[in-house]
Amino acid sequence: MPDILPHVVAAPARIGDPAAMVDTPALVIDLDVFDANIARMKAYAAQMGVALRPHAKTHKSADIALLQMQQGGAVGVCCQKVSEAVALADAGVTDILIANEVVGPAKVAALAALAGRIKLAVCADHPVQVAAYSAAAVQAGVTLDVLVEIDCGSHRCGVQPGQPAVDLALAIDAAPNLHFAGLQSYFGRAQHIYDAAERRAALEVSLKLTADTRDAIRAAGLTCDRVTGAGTGTYGVEGASGVYTEIQPGSYVFMDADYNRVAETGGFAQSLHVVATVLSTSPGQAVCDAGLKASATDCGPPQIAWPKGVTCGTLSDEHGNVVDPDAILQIGDRVGLIPGHIDPTCNLHDWYVGVRGGVVETLWPVTARGRLF
Amino acid sequence: MPDILPHVVAAPARIGDPAAMVDTPALVIDLDVFDANIARMKAYAAQMGVALRPHAKTHKSADIALLQMQQGGAVGVCCQKVSEAVALADAGVTDILIANEVVGPAKVAALAALAGRIKLAVCADHPVQVAAYSAAAVQAGVTLDVLVEIDCGSHRCGVQPGQPAVDLALAIDAAPNLHFAGLQSYFGRAQHIYDAAERRAALEVSLKLTADTRDAIRAAGLTCDRVTGAGTGTYGVEGASGVYTEIQPGSYVFMDADYNRVAETGGFAQSLHVVATVLSTSPGQAVCDAGLKASATDCGPPQIAWPKGVTCGTLSDEHGNVVDPDAILQIGDRVGLIPGHIDPTCNLHDWYVGVRGGVVETLWPVTARGRLF
Repeated sequence: MPDILPHVVAAPARIGDPAAMVDTPALVIDLDVFDANIARMKAYAAQMGVALRPHAKTHKSADIALLQMQQGGAVGVCCQKVSEAVALADAGVTDILIANEVVGPAKVAALAALAGRIKLAVCADHPVQVAAYSAAAVQAGVTLDVLVEIDCGSHRCGVQPGQPAVDLALAIDAAPNLHFAGLQSYFGRAQHIYDAAERRAALEVSLKLTADTRDAIRAAGLTCDRVTGAGTGTYGVEGASGVYTEIQPGSYVFMDADYNRVAETGGFAQSLHVVATVLSTSPGQAVCDAGLKASATDCGPPQIAWPKGVTCGTLSDEHGNVVDPDAILQIGDRVGLIPGHIDPTCNLHDWYVGVRGGVVETLWPVTARGRLF
Repeated sequence: MPDILPHVVAAPARIGDPAAMVDTPALVIDLDVFDANIARMKAYAAQMGVALRPHAKTHKSADIALLQMQQGGAVGVCCQKVSEAVALADAGVTDILIANEVVGPAKVAALAALAGRIKLAVCADHPVQVAAYSAAAVQAGVTLDVLVEIDCGSHRCGVQPGQPAVDLALAIDAAPNLHFAGLQSYFGRAQHIYDAAERRAALEVSLKLTADTRDAIRAAGLTCDRVTGAGTGTYGVEGASGVYTEIQPGSYVFMDADYNRVAETGGFAQSLHVVATVLSTSPGQAVCDAGLKASATDCGPPQIAWPKGVTCGTLSDEHGNVVDPDAILQIGDRVGLIPGHIDPTCNLHDWYVGVRGGVVETLWPVTARGRLF
């Protein structure tokens, strides 16, 4: 079964179409806003002197990853899955950090093979992974960059900071065909603390754990020049900390309803909407053609950007109920939704439709859509 | 842009592989349980003398739709979207009811074109849709079967029962190239009322509205021999009611955590699991490689079918936290998840892996995955 074939779902528009002709539900990017978001993060990273490695798990698009690297100040991108990284590499992305552990013989073999093609790094939080990476790297005849992921507060993956992290770094350093490449310290839980002071307080703890671990690894005799992490909710603290050398924000390119609730994240604006069409109306409500399969609800329902005067009700599989007390909407009208959570929303679609001045300017496939492996 | 091309994501297994070799996260079907579910619903429909038209929005698989029609007692299937129906028709499915309104010029044109290829029907709840269907059917030189959808209690789509429904049926009957084909009456909200008595009480109201509307349409001089609706949570009541001539359950083939909570739905068993691999462990927990992009959480988190002794914690994009107080799980171990909600979960994947006796027997693409249009 070939791994790379053309896209199966037809694009919902053609380049040059008026925006009003885009078939729905569709991911529609306002390219002016998108470009400004890209430029804003580029300027931030340059000002702070940190490397910018946007997380591509948000958009899963090779076009956007390449744009981030060529115009957006990015040194490379992050991925979360090997198959996602392979899809982006096949489309020309040359520098990827898999900011995650990779487990399973097929995946580890694919990881080692990819390391022979692009600049690649991966994380580990246990000697079992280190042994598997090393064996696969030896087998493939490559050297693999491996970062130690520490648990700096999210209690998801990550070895404990301090001595356990030092021991793991030493194990990587000692393993054949592996190169210890630094620390991965991502505080996922802190991204969504809405209050800025509370978020900064949480990050103070993670910053100290991260800096102390880096210092302990250096004291053990290893070089540790790379400390990477941070997201759209926290990059402003980590980027200015002097601890992190690289930041990994992803959502800043599009934003979503949840990140829009997080205070003091730098002025990024909503550039992506799920555009839907009204199928049905009844007193007090309209029903549009975007449901759970078009906009993820794990961080709450979408917000409605336009028209004004209506709000989002319940989503079911293929329907979105819209509360419309003033009967603003008629069958065939369009609604612009701000997804509750951008990453799993983009993964539901096969295409981005980029619009500027009311005209479709770009059609970008969601290159790594469904790359779960 | 061609609409049908080979699949882009490689299958996570090969036929003949041991089940333990399936790459993860993957949708794995226990074919013995699946076959029993198919046979059980076939027997029910035959016993009750109602037509069985399973909803294909659950599985989006042409293979499963054809199996339901050839071996499972189904007269055809339902779809929710035109592009979904086109994908199944292209793969050989010959009889589809789009149990939904279709709005937008491109979609209505595709609908009329499809009516020239297969036995097709669609729903309407407003004269605006009727006019669009008629114009497209005239343009395409086809006759389109159109059902009136009534709102029998869910307050989503549907014209009001009684006279508004009669008026719409008459409008369909009068419209060029349309044929009034009966009533669509689906009580979505009732599917998930867990208590059987409470559910039956809710359905009593919807059954009366549906029967009265059918009778009023007949009194207006139209034939109304088809009353269709029902789901996995309610088919037992509607199927035995004497009102419904056709039932539309979808989830019965796989089941999910939410439907497993609904009492008295006929003994269907969980045939599908999202199989995941443990990436990381720490005291009291493990983290697996199935997150929000592998298992939908709109009806709550997954349940863990196996191993026993662990429960599901928080899901993030690509990670599933597992509460593991007894440290049962080690890195590389496998976990079987029962999705909270099956329909949006299947839509996240590109393949079904069918297993029997510990060996991969079938690989079925999720044919209409992502067909949102």
